[in-house]
Amino acid sequence: MEDSGGGGGVAVESAAVDISKQEVNASNAEEAGQVVTPWEVAGKDGGKIDYDKLIVQFGCQKLDQALIDRVERLTGKPAHPFLRRGVFFAHREFDKILDAYEKGEKFYLYTGRGPSSDALHLGHLVPFMFTKYLQDAFKVPLVIQLTDDEKCMWKDITVERSQHLARENAKDIIACGFDISRTFIFSDFDYVGGEFYKNMVRIAKCVTLNQVRGIFGFVGEDHIGKVSFPPVQAAPSFPTSFPHLFGQRKDVRCLIPCAIDQDPYFRMTRDAAPRIGFLKPALIESLFFPALQGDSGKMSASDTSTAIYVTDTPKEIKTKINRYAFSGGGDTMEKHRKYGANLEVDIPVKYLSFFLDDDAELEEIKKEYGAGRMLTGEVKQRLIEVLTAIVERHRKARAGVTEEMVNAFMAVRPLPNMYG
Amino acid sequence: MEDSGGGGGVAVESAAVDISKQEVNASNAEEAGQVVTPWEVAGKDGGKIDYDKLIVQFGCQKLDQALIDRVERLTGKPAHPFLRRGVFFAHREFDKILDAYEKGEKFYLYTGRGPSSDALHLGHLVPFMFTKYLQDAFKVPLVIQLTDDEKCMWKDITVERSQHLARENAKDIIACGFDISRTFIFSDFDYVGGEFYKNMVRIAKCVTLNQVRGIFGFVGEDHIGKVSFPPVQAAPSFPTSFPHLFGQRKDVRCLIPCAIDQDPYFRMTRDAAPRIGFLKPALIESLFFPALQGDSGKMSASDTSTAIYVTDTPKEIKTKINRYAFSGGGDTMEKHRKYGANLEVDIPVKYLSFFLDDDAELEEIKKEYGAGRMLTGEVKQRLIEVLTAIVERHRKARAGVTEEMVNAFMAVRPLPNMYG
Repeated sequence: MEDSGGGGGVAVESAAVDISKQEVNASNAEEAGQVVTPWEVAGKDGGKIDYDKLIVQFGCQKLDQALIDRVERLTGKPAHPFLRRGVFFAHREFDKILDAYEKGEKFYLYTGRGPSSDALHLGHLVPFMFTKYLQDAFKVPLVIQLTDDEKCMWKDITVERSQHLARENAKDIIACGFDISRTFIFSDFDYVGGEFYKNMVRIAKCVTLNQVRGIFGFVGEDHIGKVSFPPVQAAPSFPTSFPHLFGQRKDVRCLIPCAIDQDPYFRMTRDAAPRIGFLKPALIESLFFPALQGDSGKMSASDTSTAIYVTDTPKEIKTKINRYAFSGGGDTMEKHRKYGANLEVDIPVKYLSFFLDDDAELEEIKKEYGAGRMLTGEVKQRLIEVLTAIVERHRKARAGVTEEMVNAFMAVRPLPNMYG
Repeated sequence: MEDSGGGGGVAVESAAVDISKQEVNASNAEEAGQVVTPWEVAGKDGGKIDYDKLIVQFGCQKLDQALIDRVERLTGKPAHPFLRRGVFFAHREFDKILDAYEKGEKFYLYTGRGPSSDALHLGHLVPFMFTKYLQDAFKVPLVIQLTDDEKCMWKDITVERSQHLARENAKDIIACGFDISRTFIFSDFDYVGGEFYKNMVRIAKCVTLNQVRGIFGFVGEDHIGKVSFPPVQAAPSFPTSFPHLFGQRKDVRCLIPCAIDQDPYFRMTRDAAPRIGFLKPALIESLFFPALQGDSGKMSASDTSTAIYVTDTPKEIKTKINRYAFSGGGDTMEKHRKYGANLEVDIPVKYLSFFLDDDAELEEIKKEYGAGRMLTGEVKQRLIEVLTAIVERHRKARAGVTEEMVNAFMAVRPLPNMYG
């Protein structure tokens, strides 16, 4: 899974015959004025991403309140704030997963990460925090793919460096609190082979060069490693890629929580699925976590001033938020008191919407700040407290992750009570 | 390794910057009037392959008498008939292999096969018979790749069918007499992964989409499995792909005996090698074994009347040779006695040149037949004897190959005395 780099087009999921007309869809994307691929996220004229338009462009569905209510009913737990507040806002056949779950059928979760730097930022944690909630709420097994091969191929780093990053990132992921009795973490360099490789080949046979050029925007100057990669990210969507978990069962459903920029991979995967005898994986897709400087796409892992890292000290968090977090407050105290804050563009409020658990407090802040009765400094102060607590909790948890624990999570092994 | 299918261009081995101009080289190939790729072998205007021109087109070297003499001197054994008679006629840096061997440095052999049908024909045996000679003469380890993934991707067959064919073909290969203490046979579906996969990724990073389109003739409608495959065939050229044999040693030389249609894969591999810290693999390359109907390229595995199969009965061999083997003899007895046979086009003589061990007898037949004193029927009779003996020997040897022996050859294991 990628989060920066070269360009590409987008396309509506479709029958195999339609997907070969990706150039047309790519043009549609240009007309829509925004480009979202695994390597590029850009709103129209450098502005905000229009997520409603993206749903139409991509052909996925909006995750509505009825579905959220159903999740609460089926799991007997309150929905995660990321669900209640529309952070995970779109889906593909998530309703079918719930239908199956209701009938007592099993499914598994699949998410992943492209290990690109030693430290993760808060945006990187979003899918993992949400996946942990799903795992706990539905009591299902989870596979987490670390695409060290992809990072080695897209970035100018060696196999060894990429493997090192994968292992370091695994520690951060484990620190999110996943249940070792239901979680298998693997790196591609370790795990590609056997049944997984066979599924890669089966998938690759279903996708033409023209199609990947349309879906991912590959060009003739790209190396063939890039062209070879999509089946690697697709393969974990199919249960037989994990014989130690699912044996030869082809009928176990897969649900993929991810940021919506990964959708192109799984449109391709869903097109291939029925042709090779698998169920289409379902998706539940999130917004991008905004940069401190404002809400025009995803954060950069390379510019440390754009994000709060899980390695930041309390002092760094305080400084970054006070200095960089884009404020929607009035230019002057007088104007602020008179007109209130513009919550649509205010980063402290957006960050609190992700990470402040208490719905009532969040509403209160929005009301008071929006009315100009609360000041930016006060909101930032609350955000600093919330994020410092999260980062500190993560820091402590990560410090407790030993090499042995990493080995244990990454061991190819059955998970005896994975649905228990 | 392939032996039939779609088209493609050819190119001279070159620096990375030059190989991206493959279209130019492909045009050169068209000018030369013949096309030789792993999937297509066609002489000018459907005629014979001009091998001297092919050497120039591909940029490899002619294997001359001085080199053959040197092989005899270094191994203390007479050169194999395939060497003496120019069946293996071209090479890349085979001289460097001999230099290294002379200095006491180690090398290993790598050859392979794309399992496409249950039965092998005699042309399929040629590289294996020669590889066995090389293994015995130089006392070196050998890796044999069965590209079941490639066959699954190029042909419309399932993973399981392709794996089955690989295993059946392994029995024929083992029946050629390879030394189990020095031979590792592997199928890609079994073995891809780990260090092998890492080398695939390293190679893939060195080759652009434009380059493989130029080298192999891939087009937009081809599926991406084809585009992904060249690094799979390239990886065994590098010793670290076999950690159970060579550990982490990057300096072990590789010699690849193969038919010259496989040259495009290894031009690509040789271009990549120095960029990822490996020695370029050396090649020793053969002519194509002619079809019974005449010498205009390779045989077809799908038309059983074009070839002698290792499963043919003595009666079938006799019938096929008498009925189909193209004769260069005179149209009438009178003309034959007067003008003699045209040995240039005569298939019985060509087949004897491959498989009749006795140089003196072969020369005698050529002399007498060429002068019209020997008749086609007599030459065919001798060929029937020779091939029946070879096929019977193979049949018996193959019948003795058990599933346990296949498992033993294909076990991922050290070869303790591989240079002993």
